[in-house]
Amino acid sequence: MVEADVFADGHDALACVLRSRHQSSAEWTESPMAPLVNDRWRGRFTVTELGRYVYTVEGWIDPFRTWNRQLAKRIEAGQDVKLDLEIGARLVEAAATRVQGEDAARLTALAQALRKQGTAMPAAQREQLATLMARYADRSQATSYSRELEVVVEPERARFGAWYELFPRSAGKPGVHGTFRDLEQRLPYVSGMGFDILYLPPIHPIGKTHRKGRNNTVRATSSDPGSPWAIGSEQGGHKSVNPDLGTLEDFRRFVRVAGEHGLSVALDIAFQCSPDHPYVREHPEWFRHRPDGSIQFAENPPKKYEDIVPFDFETESWRELWQELLSVVQFWIDQGVRIFRIDNPHTKPFPFWEWLIGEVKRAQPDVIFLSEAFTRPKVMYRLAKLGFSQSYTYFAWRNTPWEIAQYFTELSRPPVADFLRPNLWPNTPDILNEYLQIGGRPAFAARFMLAATLGASYGIYGPAFELCEGRAREAGSEEYLDSEKYQLRTWDLDSPDSLRDLITAVNKLRRENPALQTDRTLRFHPTENEFLVAYTKSTEDLNDVVLTVVNVDSRRTQAGMVTLPLDDLGLPRDKAYQAHELLTGARYVWNGPRNYVEINPSSAPGQIFRFRRQVRSEHDFEYFL
Amino acid sequence: MVEADVFADGHDALACVLRSRHQSSAEWTESPMAPLVNDRWRGRFTVTELGRYVYTVEGWIDPFRTWNRQLAKRIEAGQDVKLDLEIGARLVEAAATRVQGEDAARLTALAQALRKQGTAMPAAQREQLATLMARYADRSQATSYSRELEVVVEPERARFGAWYELFPRSAGKPGVHGTFRDLEQRLPYVSGMGFDILYLPPIHPIGKTHRKGRNNTVRATSSDPGSPWAIGSEQGGHKSVNPDLGTLEDFRRFVRVAGEHGLSVALDIAFQCSPDHPYVREHPEWFRHRPDGSIQFAENPPKKYEDIVPFDFETESWRELWQELLSVVQFWIDQGVRIFRIDNPHTKPFPFWEWLIGEVKRAQPDVIFLSEAFTRPKVMYRLAKLGFSQSYTYFAWRNTPWEIAQYFTELSRPPVADFLRPNLWPNTPDILNEYLQIGGRPAFAARFMLAATLGASYGIYGPAFELCEGRAREAGSEEYLDSEKYQLRTWDLDSPDSLRDLITAVNKLRRENPALQTDRTLRFHPTENEFLVAYTKSTEDLNDVVLTVVNVDSRRTQAGMVTLPLDDLGLPRDKAYQAHELLTGARYVWNGPRNYVEINPSSAPGQIFRFRRQVRSEHDFEYFL
Repeated sequence: MVEADVFADGHDALACVLRSRHQSSAEWTESPMAPLVNDRWRGRFTVTELGRYVYTVEGWIDPFRTWNRQLAKRIEAGQDVKLDLEIGARLVEAAATRVQGEDAARLTALAQALRKQGTAMPAAQREQLATLMARYADRSQATSYSRELEVVVEPERARFGAWYELFPRSAGKPGVHGTFRDLEQRLPYVSGMGFDILYLPPIHPIGKTHRKGRNNTVRATSSDPGSPWAIGSEQGGHKSVNPDLGTLEDFRRFVRVAGEHGLSVALDIAFQCSPDHPYVREHPEWFRHRPDGSIQFAENPPKKYEDIVPFDFETESWRELWQELLSVVQFWIDQGVRIFRIDNPHTKPFPFWEWLIGEVKRAQPDVIFLSEAFTRPKVMYRLAKLGFSQSYTYFAWRNTPWEIAQYFTELSRPPVADFLRPNLWPNTPDILNEYLQIGGRPAFAARFMLAATLGASYGIYGPAFELCEGRAREAGSEEYLDSEKYQLRTWDLDSPDSLRDLITAVNKLRRENPALQTDRTLRFHPTENEFLVAYTKSTEDLNDVVLTVVNVDSRRTQAGMVTLPLDDLGLPRDKAYQAHELLTGARYVWNGPRNYVEINPSSAPGQIFRFRRQVRSEHDFEYFL
Repeated sequence: MVEADVFADGHDALACVLRSRHQSSAEWTESPMAPLVNDRWRGRFTVTELGRYVYTVEGWIDPFRTWNRQLAKRIEAGQDVKLDLEIGARLVEAAATRVQGEDAARLTALAQALRKQGTAMPAAQREQLATLMARYADRSQATSYSRELEVVVEPERARFGAWYELFPRSAGKPGVHGTFRDLEQRLPYVSGMGFDILYLPPIHPIGKTHRKGRNNTVRATSSDPGSPWAIGSEQGGHKSVNPDLGTLEDFRRFVRVAGEHGLSVALDIAFQCSPDHPYVREHPEWFRHRPDGSIQFAENPPKKYEDIVPFDFETESWRELWQELLSVVQFWIDQGVRIFRIDNPHTKPFPFWEWLIGEVKRAQPDVIFLSEAFTRPKVMYRLAKLGFSQSYTYFAWRNTPWEIAQYFTELSRPPVADFLRPNLWPNTPDILNEYLQIGGRPAFAARFMLAATLGASYGIYGPAFELCEGRAREAGSEEYLDSEKYQLRTWDLDSPDSLRDLITAVNKLRRENPALQTDRTLRFHPTENEFLVAYTKSTEDLNDVVLTVVNVDSRRTQAGMVTLPLDDLGLPRDKAYQAHELLTGARYVWNGPRNYVEINPSSAPGQIFRFRRQVRSEHDFEYFL
């Protein structure tokens, strides 16, 4: 739906169309716009293909409709309209000269009829005249909006999906480096919890120079696997597979088997190198060098990251570099990958991403790019505007109901909602926030419920997450103790404390309730308790309205009165309605806008209610009356 | 003051300048911008001349400042910075190659000093280095905002002025057509009331064909002077003076004498003709013709205005027509006129006005154009954006406090306040609204006080206004009975009911109080009475804060509690302050935000208070304690 202010000097009748086309087509499609009030017009066009559409608005003065409207007034006032009919006939004849074929003859005939019959012209003929004159309007003086606007149509998965991140290195037997074959065994576990996307950190050979040891120590022992983000060794670079994980053939097979389990594999694109990367030897011109000839490693002074060297995106050979990096993405697309999580895009030039994403999506509009830019908001927004399908958010650091409501209200409304699709992660391999470190299992459960119901897209880094791994490397740090970034870990997937069942249940609700598959209807509601956050999501037709209430106090039971805007949610003002809690199956009869909710975090830190539009019979009350 | 979001990928230091230039100059002036928070930067430039300025923002990554910032961190961490000093020296040497003359040598020397002395470099030298490196930054990769924005600097009179409209035809002895010489006698009366601008309806020869008689009757008698808007006869057109008023020489003299009385003369530009206008004979191609060869007169079907023919602005000879109309404006500028009230600009093409105003103001930026477009808001806004200095408003039809607050809040805030300067008219020769017809003298007084204090620019059509002429042609009409548009009128300027004294007093307050000379600080305040409207205007430094309270009930005394935002107005929370009513001279001691106001419409329908920042001594209370 598109709205525009359309007006001209004077009082003539206007006409206005919405023009749109898919980027792959040179042909514009037109649909009429209709006036609302105060010179505002509205039109619609339907997108049917993935990719980029451009659209604009064109308007013109319509002398025939002006004439027609004035004629009616003259006739009503009993004026002599002979000359006016002649003026109209000439307008029709002028239109005939703009037309080829039968319609030209029709118009000429209609002009004659207007002269001869005038106001006695039959209604059908008058209607035909109006239709033809609208179709062949003189648009030589038409005005277009000065810009061609764009709308990008992405695959549904860009809007809605549950992500699961894991380190393949830990998928093997205890103490043995995991392989893609091992990882195949983990697929039923992940898909069983209802995830849609399985995201793997970089799978490439890892550099040896300055390799980091356990807990990010400066010297690694020979058995330390190193950080997967230190990409490249004599075994290959961004287009190679770490031999410890298997072969490229193993990877392709893994992608296929994952697909059979309903899981799309997402890869990490980290455009940086270890000092051992073949690029460093083959293309020294793609890197910065210091005055002593040494290559410039990554740093954030005074911190140094000597296992990583960044590309010089402004090198004189930038064309070759950019082309090579595009070919990396294309290489993995060719292996069957359609989803990429882009590491630190904000440290590379905006034009680079705009170009790369544009190039990829022109041929493969179904490819999804997730931006891992934990940086200033305007930079995140810019990345979203230039083409990223999704973006990480500050969710991990928004822990109180007030913070949550502020932040997600901003993200779910225009202008931000017009260009940015948030992806909510309660944890990542880099982020174990204080709330999780302190709160234990109830905190993990609460953060999970928030992520999965606030965000149509969300993800967890597991099994650390579902096993409630909350130990930090040191006090005040958000780094994990014994992080998988630097070592193998063995996880007890069958731990009785696992959140597996809760995750499975909530992911099922996400699939069953279209309200949870979009962010644009998110709306927060007062709870009269600073530890309770309450919000609804709904479908446009209000056939699915889901209320989530989460207790962020991981220690104590909290209760409050949730106040809902009944009219906006399609709930009745004057009779009872049913609140069906979906995790427990409990059905409550609620009345009016204010209703009581009580949440004990030790059982489940949140409740998810679905509303039926109306309680239809007394039978519905039986559950607990 | 200009703000911009300025950011780049990565974490490098940025620099940013505001670039501006007057349209007459090719040279850009630059002033530095400074960062606020959240990637927002702010800068300023000062306008010193009338006319159009363009401005934009340019930003770039500053490697030297990035290096400098990082160096400080490295030194603080005790790292070896020998290589970093070399990197810095090379940056300085690169800058030296971009520079001519002494500064090049200075930079080369500083690069050497950096190498040799390093961190031991004296502070003065370090400062010189930073200054020179900022001056000669490498801006080859700088990015400019994609648009050049414009700001138009208009004469002060475009913002602030009191207008008085009158018909010269009524300035003579009773029953005798007035002349410019007669009108000179009226100047002390008008300037004595404190008006700044004297606006005259068209002064050109008036057509005879289809001339309108008294009260707009279709047939005029030979003694009827006709409507001044039916311009042109065998005596001349838009560049001629109606002989009944005098000669062109008389007009020039009148403009000069008016100036001596402190009055600027504004003329009416009505681009339309009587059928007798010389243009009709000499340039038939500038008009539309009907199929029978007759010229197309003005109409709004079913209404016909046969004494007026409009120009065809889309004629094939539009270039000649437009040029001729421009020459009309230029002709009157050459006679000493600098202010024009443009009749019905919304019925002529937008591009025509944009071109005409642009052409006039390029050479004469002190010329002011007032748009008389009583039409839909977006059309009025468009005319303001394309170059009109001021616009008439819907003031005449906003009569309740609620309507007034809604409408003038919209006009006095961005976006509208950024491009439109309102001019408030309680009446015009075309508009005698119902409120005035019914309310009598108190209604006229109330509407006057509202216009003169709500609007930095306002005007009245007199003497009809100050003599409280409230008789309509017929019930339900906004036309005056015995309108001066069609006949001479004799006015008793010395009537005891005249609002002359009130007008004189209020215009004096307008000149004394800078708060009343701007619209941007207008703010409405609650009164707890639906007949009382209260609002303040203030200077930026709050040294002048003026509160106006008007009773719109012309029959009864109304009282209420006015609630003021003390902090915003610089009024004390914790002690009394003085409210000085400027029309009566009464001084009240007010306390806190809520204070009592009572207004009897039969004495004065409004009160105008000025606040001193603080009651300085007990002495100030003496006036009435």
